[in-house]
Amino acid sequence: MEIKIVKQILEWNEDVSKAVIGELQEKKVCLINVMGSPGGGKTSLIKQIIARLRDRYRIAVIEGDIAGQIDADAIGALGIPVVQLQTDGACHIEAMSIQNMLPMFDLDETDVIFVENIGNLVCPAEFNIGEDLRVSILSIPEGDDKVQKYPLMFSTTDALVLNKYDMLPYFDFDTERVEADERACNPDAEIFRISARSGEGLDAFIEWLAGRIAEKVGR
Amino acid sequence: MEIKIVKQILEWNEDVSKAVIGELQEKKVCLINVMGSPGGGKTSLIKQIIARLRDRYRIAVIEGDIAGQIDADAIGALGIPVVQLQTDGACHIEAMSIQNMLPMFDLDETDVIFVENIGNLVCPAEFNIGEDLRVSILSIPEGDDKVQKYPLMFSTTDALVLNKYDMLPYFDFDTERVEADERACNPDAEIFRISARSGEGLDAFIEWLAGRIAEKVGR
Repeated sequence: MEIKIVKQILEWNEDVSKAVIGELQEKKVCLINVMGSPGGGKTSLIKQIIARLRDRYRIAVIEGDIAGQIDADAIGALGIPVVQLQTDGACHIEAMSIQNMLPMFDLDETDVIFVENIGNLVCPAEFNIGEDLRVSILSIPEGDDKVQKYPLMFSTTDALVLNKYDMLPYFDFDTERVEADERACNPDAEIFRISARSGEGLDAFIEWLAGRIAEKVGR
Repeated sequence: MEIKIVKQILEWNEDVSKAVIGELQEKKVCLINVMGSPGGGKTSLIKQIIARLRDRYRIAVIEGDIAGQIDADAIGALGIPVVQLQTDGACHIEAMSIQNMLPMFDLDETDVIFVENIGNLVCPAEFNIGEDLRVSILSIPEGDDKVQKYPLMFSTTDALVLNKYDMLPYFDFDTERVEADERACNPDAEIFRISARSGEGLDAFIEWLAGRIAEKVGR
């Protein structure tokens, strides 16, 4: 019974997702869906991206959280347009939420919108939100079995970002294994080893990201 | 529309949960729901509990995962009865799954069943599975804002286990803040600082856990 219901929701979400894609295509705005576990470093990565790309692209952020506005406050303090989406318990963001929030931004003055999804390796991956790109974070302390255990997210992502890589000496984490698992389920994904805290490894990621944004924005 | 559907599922789950409680009451089996983020240390904690309590109580385990059987293999290697529940994409375990799996165990020869829930701070907390106890893990690398961000799990848990506490020097984690947040939303929860890897801090947790199991099992 439950499976049928989920499929209905997913079909309905797909329709709204296509509407979002159409609207953003017209405005040449790139939508980037940032996913990962709680505490994996989504906000920290977005802050690093803002610092490095804000002179080149006009950036906005949608912060998804079950409750509170801790992350939106952090982004807003940087002078970046941000809207906090409180899902009030829901474990993922749907396309309808994005559709309802787009009018809160001046899309003619926006090049990129980052959506920080709910900290969760499962449900967010099932819901397209009209994104151009998916960026999935796996942090070293989470362990090296996660690609195998949460295959949908890692097989549908455009980039796998291994964050907190400076913590590698302190954890049992086999990077080769994770990268092999990722290539097996998703040969096209780019893989980056970074520390959003120290900035280590970010240059290559930012270069790739800027290239993908440029394709959509046209400059 | 979606909210209504979720409520229907939750009401239905509540009925099944009560049936599970009745069956386990009759058999004097204690059911413990272990929740936390991906890679927070759920399996490691269960392995430590097994090592320390297997001479006192007959332990069984239900391993919940989206896919695969990595954790069930690890538990089975210890000679403990274990069943792997593959949710095939679903982000939480429901009472119906537990009800369907109980016949796979010899309940007359079982004192405690640990259920390792899906790695997710959101959805598992919404679904009672007939458990006597909830044990929620928050690991230091996940950050100190998680109790505020995921209030349902942390306000309904019987114990908050701060795992990977030996990693505290390497992360910005304010233990006082987390413990104050937990006491604010859930004054009755026990809080433990442990390392499931090193064994640090486990004595107090195991003593508390054994006391709660004894209440149910009657010895």
